[in-house]
Amino acid sequence: MSTYHPVTPEIIAELEQIVGRRYVIHGDSEQLEPYSHDEITEKKYHHLPDVVVRPRTTTEIAAIMKLANRELIPVTPRGGGSGLSGGAVPVMGGIVLATDRMNSIIELDTDNMLIVVEPGVITNDIDALVAEHGLFFAGYPMSLQSCFIGGNVAENAGGGKAVKYGVTGQYILGVEMVTPEGEIVKLGGKLVKDVTGYDLTKLIIGSEGTLGIFTKVIIKLLPRPTEVVDLLVLFPDPETAIGMVSTIMTEARVIPTAIEFMDRLSAHASCEYLNERLPYEKAGAMLLIQLDGNRKAQLEEEYEAIGELCLEHGAIEVYVADNYTTQERIWSVRRNIAEAFMVVSPHQSLEDITVPVANIPKMIPELERLAKKYDIQVPCYGHAGDGNLHATPVKNPNHSLEQWEEMLPQILADLYAATRDLDGVISGEHGIGHKRKNYMSYSVSDASLELMKRIKRAFDPNNVLNPGKIFDV
Amino acid sequence: MSTYHPVTPEIIAELEQIVGRRYVIHGDSEQLEPYSHDEITEKKYHHLPDVVVRPRTTTEIAAIMKLANRELIPVTPRGGGSGLSGGAVPVMGGIVLATDRMNSIIELDTDNMLIVVEPGVITNDIDALVAEHGLFFAGYPMSLQSCFIGGNVAENAGGGKAVKYGVTGQYILGVEMVTPEGEIVKLGGKLVKDVTGYDLTKLIIGSEGTLGIFTKVIIKLLPRPTEVVDLLVLFPDPETAIGMVSTIMTEARVIPTAIEFMDRLSAHASCEYLNERLPYEKAGAMLLIQLDGNRKAQLEEEYEAIGELCLEHGAIEVYVADNYTTQERIWSVRRNIAEAFMVVSPHQSLEDITVPVANIPKMIPELERLAKKYDIQVPCYGHAGDGNLHATPVKNPNHSLEQWEEMLPQILADLYAATRDLDGVISGEHGIGHKRKNYMSYSVSDASLELMKRIKRAFDPNNVLNPGKIFDV
Repeated sequence: MSTYHPVTPEIIAELEQIVGRRYVIHGDSEQLEPYSHDEITEKKYHHLPDVVVRPRTTTEIAAIMKLANRELIPVTPRGGGSGLSGGAVPVMGGIVLATDRMNSIIELDTDNMLIVVEPGVITNDIDALVAEHGLFFAGYPMSLQSCFIGGNVAENAGGGKAVKYGVTGQYILGVEMVTPEGEIVKLGGKLVKDVTGYDLTKLIIGSEGTLGIFTKVIIKLLPRPTEVVDLLVLFPDPETAIGMVSTIMTEARVIPTAIEFMDRLSAHASCEYLNERLPYEKAGAMLLIQLDGNRKAQLEEEYEAIGELCLEHGAIEVYVADNYTTQERIWSVRRNIAEAFMVVSPHQSLEDITVPVANIPKMIPELERLAKKYDIQVPCYGHAGDGNLHATPVKNPNHSLEQWEEMLPQILADLYAATRDLDGVISGEHGIGHKRKNYMSYSVSDASLELMKRIKRAFDPNNVLNPGKIFDV
Repeated sequence: MSTYHPVTPEIIAELEQIVGRRYVIHGDSEQLEPYSHDEITEKKYHHLPDVVVRPRTTTEIAAIMKLANRELIPVTPRGGGSGLSGGAVPVMGGIVLATDRMNSIIELDTDNMLIVVEPGVITNDIDALVAEHGLFFAGYPMSLQSCFIGGNVAENAGGGKAVKYGVTGQYILGVEMVTPEGEIVKLGGKLVKDVTGYDLTKLIIGSEGTLGIFTKVIIKLLPRPTEVVDLLVLFPDPETAIGMVSTIMTEARVIPTAIEFMDRLSAHASCEYLNERLPYEKAGAMLLIQLDGNRKAQLEEEYEAIGELCLEHGAIEVYVADNYTTQERIWSVRRNIAEAFMVVSPHQSLEDITVPVANIPKMIPELERLAKKYDIQVPCYGHAGDGNLHATPVKNPNHSLEQWEEMLPQILADLYAATRDLDGVISGEHGIGHKRKNYMSYSVSDASLELMKRIKRAFDPNNVLNPGKIFDV
């Protein structure tokens, strides 16, 4: 474990000189509090920084890192604060480096179908801007209303459209970043192909702000689909539902934009919460299938083929939503699951385990076993098309908060062990951060972890950039 | 520079014990010769190994690496030997580790739409096998008749379908590999999403066999398209042709499988070589556009839209090939360019520079300038859809071989400088190997290179795995 130095008045003065007095926050715990947590509510994952700096330029960030590296002060980069693994939490104190002022669109290059932005731009704003030019950013996370693009890249955010379009990282052509030692490096470029040495861009994506601080991001854009259709398909059981994922792709020869899954518990809770009149009582599982494209006739042909295929393979009912109103109605069933369980308890551990798609049905009885063992509910829903499940332990209202906090680590250990035994990993899109750090051995072998630690040391010899995340060096 | 130890009779004996006597080749330069080069013909890029080993199992490879790491003997992994940058050439002598016996298909998992193979399987065999199940491997390199999948992953092979499908790396879900120190590690898995720590799989892809030797590769498959249509479009000049790339995507809203480019010089040479009756004399540039899909009607709609759009934007002529015979006819124009210039001279430097797509037209006059300066021909053709150009200096038959060998380094330096000035890089798919090692500074900054070297040292402290490639540690 590294020994860090305190943030002295001299350090504060130097930081003020770098970014300007008004962009340094310190000494006032009320002002520092918003920088002490992300969207995890449990207090045990929160930690106050000593000081927050809000730089405006790459040069300022480089100067801050040089200072921190010289003085051995931890620096935790922070984007929109919408994370779910504590990645932006300054667990060792020190400096929080907020990127909210790094929020310019640098260049929209329609000829090359890409956009260059600073890390503090809200992802939704990027998509809204490029939409005007018939383009879209396909690495679309679910929280795009609030998240910053820098955080999306740092976490390699997933989301609902990964079946067809892949995750955020697939669209990142390059970055400019500041290393832990304060060097400015450009990785990648306006290039679709590039094999000049190791692919540092890809290594940096998903490194959770531990290897560098992005100062520019180059994003590949696609032509924006003009048509969208959603299908809500009710199945008697999870096996039948999940079996459809590869059947749709190989027999209907369609790759849907999204294939979302809801188990009986999730679907029932959400339908009841919404007072939805779908015949959900009969359904043991539901799939929400989204298709997109540019030709209405083709989409019709595709959804008809998928609907028929589902019915042939045992689906109970297929609902088609080809207009905004009905689309909103069926997506609200999916979107309100977490909300529906808030009525049971606001204490939920939002998980994002990932297993091979074909193993999803085997996961369901494991979750039921877990629920029984701890006398809690564990609804399971999420991105079936890529095996990424939000299996979410929900506190039993009859348990005290102390009981819940005591049992949660054991629940997670059991959940992660079941995931591992089904060839899965503990996180598909939220990241490790410090929430899941102690569980890394469930997904990553000692030999792999050793390689990761060596990479961390190679980039950050003094362990000053976002220490205490992913693993301890 | 590391100091390596010689391959002694004791080392040979130990290698024979590991893999069996019949799978160790040494002492016979005729038998060793095929392992001294890849597909680069120039002798200066060739180097004989001291010994070749042909292991059959992961355990054997681990034992070889432990031995080499202990005894400080360089190991150069070799796949199909179809490389174009010298990546498989044992420039420091020592051991060539041939993966040709690691050639089993381990598992075709249609439920999860993936295949697990050993590194020595010929890429074409993988595609042929999965085709029987309506699937395909979309990371399709051009040389798939001879290349091994291990080499494709090591080089992050590109090829002609990257516009729509991306390069090889996009389809690699995980690998098992042996580290330079002889540890066996599993990276990734049967998972579409995985953010448990650094993405070592993505780092390993394209690392040219310098960070580990693959022993298993997990490949994501897609539904196989049933319909293919090709368009050959003649344009008055490169600017008009290249301008179509983004226009097709944003206005016709189609992402073609391939958009191949041929400049006047390439197209003329190939047409004359083939005695092709296309009105190529009028054309300043050609595009070959391929579309694929599963619905004939949709493809027709798409190619008509693209054809009309091209004519509206100044194309001279559009030829549609929707059957095998005409498709072969127009692809042979593209495929025979290198062959056509063989008539001029067999001495060609196959290059694969990459620039932002919109900068391709600016590259053409640079190549003409280069041709004039050195009194040679530099045809330019390649993958316009992703900016990856085979700008190929061809020896002037009036120059002596000595003259050519003397001027080539300077030609390359000029070519790479022009590429850099247009925001490009020196290699988009062939890799650096040792052919382009001394030119890395044209694409990669000192700070980036330093990070790469640190990663190399972190993985391979004794620099025994494929030394002398990409950079010198």
